[in-house]
Amino acid sequence: MSNRMVRLVRRPRGMATRADFAIEDGPVPEPGPGEFRVKIAYISLDPAMRGWMNDAKSYVAPVKLGEVMRAGAAGIVETSNNPAFAVGDAVQGAFGVQQYAVSNGERVIKVDTRQAPLERWVGGLGMPGWTAYFGLLDVGQPKTGETVVVSAASGAVGSVVGQIAKIKGCRVVGIAGGSEKCRYVIQELGFDACVDYKAGHLAQELKAACPKGIDVNFENVGGEILDTVLSQMNVFGRIALCGLISGYNATEVPAGPKNIRAVLTQRLRMQGLIVFDWADRVPEAIAQLGQWHKEGRLKIREDVREGGVDVFPEVLNLLYTGGNFGKLVLKV
Amino acid sequence: MSNRMVRLVRRPRGMATRADFAIEDGPVPEPGPGEFRVKIAYISLDPAMRGWMNDAKSYVAPVKLGEVMRAGAAGIVETSNNPAFAVGDAVQGAFGVQQYAVSNGERVIKVDTRQAPLERWVGGLGMPGWTAYFGLLDVGQPKTGETVVVSAASGAVGSVVGQIAKIKGCRVVGIAGGSEKCRYVIQELGFDACVDYKAGHLAQELKAACPKGIDVNFENVGGEILDTVLSQMNVFGRIALCGLISGYNATEVPAGPKNIRAVLTQRLRMQGLIVFDWADRVPEAIAQLGQWHKEGRLKIREDVREGGVDVFPEVLNLLYTGGNFGKLVLKV
Repeated sequence: MSNRMVRLVRRPRGMATRADFAIEDGPVPEPGPGEFRVKIAYISLDPAMRGWMNDAKSYVAPVKLGEVMRAGAAGIVETSNNPAFAVGDAVQGAFGVQQYAVSNGERVIKVDTRQAPLERWVGGLGMPGWTAYFGLLDVGQPKTGETVVVSAASGAVGSVVGQIAKIKGCRVVGIAGGSEKCRYVIQELGFDACVDYKAGHLAQELKAACPKGIDVNFENVGGEILDTVLSQMNVFGRIALCGLISGYNATEVPAGPKNIRAVLTQRLRMQGLIVFDWADRVPEAIAQLGQWHKEGRLKIREDVREGGVDVFPEVLNLLYTGGNFGKLVLKV
Repeated sequence: MSNRMVRLVRRPRGMATRADFAIEDGPVPEPGPGEFRVKIAYISLDPAMRGWMNDAKSYVAPVKLGEVMRAGAAGIVETSNNPAFAVGDAVQGAFGVQQYAVSNGERVIKVDTRQAPLERWVGGLGMPGWTAYFGLLDVGQPKTGETVVVSAASGAVGSVVGQIAKIKGCRVVGIAGGSEKCRYVIQELGFDACVDYKAGHLAQELKAACPKGIDVNFENVGGEILDTVLSQMNVFGRIALCGLISGYNATEVPAGPKNIRAVLTQRLRMQGLIVFDWADRVPEAIAQLGQWHKEGRLKIREDVREGGVDVFPEVLNLLYTGGNFGKLVLKV
């Protein structure tokens, strides 16, 4: 028995490549006192992972060279020296890109696989869902009747953001890449409109979809999309800045938003958010998202990829090329 | 008797020039029922004026071609059909770049020239002072012991911001152009440090002046200064965005802040502010600023220029070249 793992061995320039990682077998880790071992079933692939590979000041320390690549994951406890975690428990935590992980239970959450399948607990009911929940409600603070624009609207976070905004009585407009994603966002997720940024005419189409302007922007992309949104924000609008994926693989620092002046003239509030800051309120998010999900008001779609940890580099990059459709998950 | 006035006749490209205005005599306006006439003594020159000349979406309508250039001003009521304003009253309002104005009293404030000279009521005790007061306290929300960085630190707004931050128990660091302004900011206004952005090494000197990082930025300048500040902001920092003067005369849209990613990773709140939004709380600002001023805790410096409305274009441009030292006021 061995543990196949993906270690970061070189800091990528631009898009990460296979050569930036060592993918190899190691011994299966043994839990010490108070610890337990998880057999990982699903690994969460998130846009933020590219940033974790850089040796730069950020909200978490970079992954060190030689370390197992950091990742959220879900699996089953298979041996335990921790009374709070029993063999057979389904759990979610930062277990890394590998087959087995040992944990002392810190920041590990037990999940209910009768309520939703395991892979969903790293997606819409997991960290991306919590990000959407706290980011939209606490930072975006949408009011009934306001117009909310969500970029990366078919993605793990964006899809949940838009559905919560609909539940809160907003007009919800998505931005997504391609007509298939836009159709899904409108027909399956119930957004009022969705603009295909790949079709050109982003500014005109966004304007047509937001005849009363934009009150809340939940921003996952940055770049030209953020600039276009900025130019259409209403007075006292809020921008919940969750991601800037358009620049995550840039080899030079990307250009900043040239329409920053709108923050001043429209008295906008632009605020960054990292879900870790709501760690003590995660149970609230799980309960509320679970309730909406049970009632059929929150639809969640995973894009589960086969191939195990060996295909991690290629599958991860789907996020940055728009190649995934729904929450990207790697099956181990 | 005639009214010399400055009318905008062409929209400037880049820095405004004399050819963008018609400076000429007209009849002295007669107040109608409920109105009064003000003999203007001091005209406030503010960075925002350049933006008002553009035909662009902003927080106020552009000055129309042919209209008297919009400006805050202070003067004395010399004839009145309004029982709330008596002949001899000293008043402050948006009277425009001219010698005489008629008003119905809307948004006009009576000021006390025993407390401070008339020119100060368009400066540190007037709109720039109110901007500093509400912008720092309501938007910046500094806490005792935090580090506050103020750009354009010797200017009308920045000088008041820094002194209020000192009163609130913060470490206060200014950014100003030239050693004379920096000396004034430290020695006269009591800032803890001041970085001369013209001396080069802005990032290193700012870092040395802010060893614990920056918690609050009151931003008047934008451009490279904002980018440098962004790179040194602490987690949960606040940026009160009051001005972007470095770009006001640009003929192309200036580059945006390339360090915008710090808003995300440091969970910053960047919020635009326009003093008009606190119109109903102006008496509070006047009372508090006046109190501090009386106690000698708030020092205010005007840079009063002679020459009347005829020299308006040239004097205004001092703001954009850093040629003024203190609140720029045109004596009529």
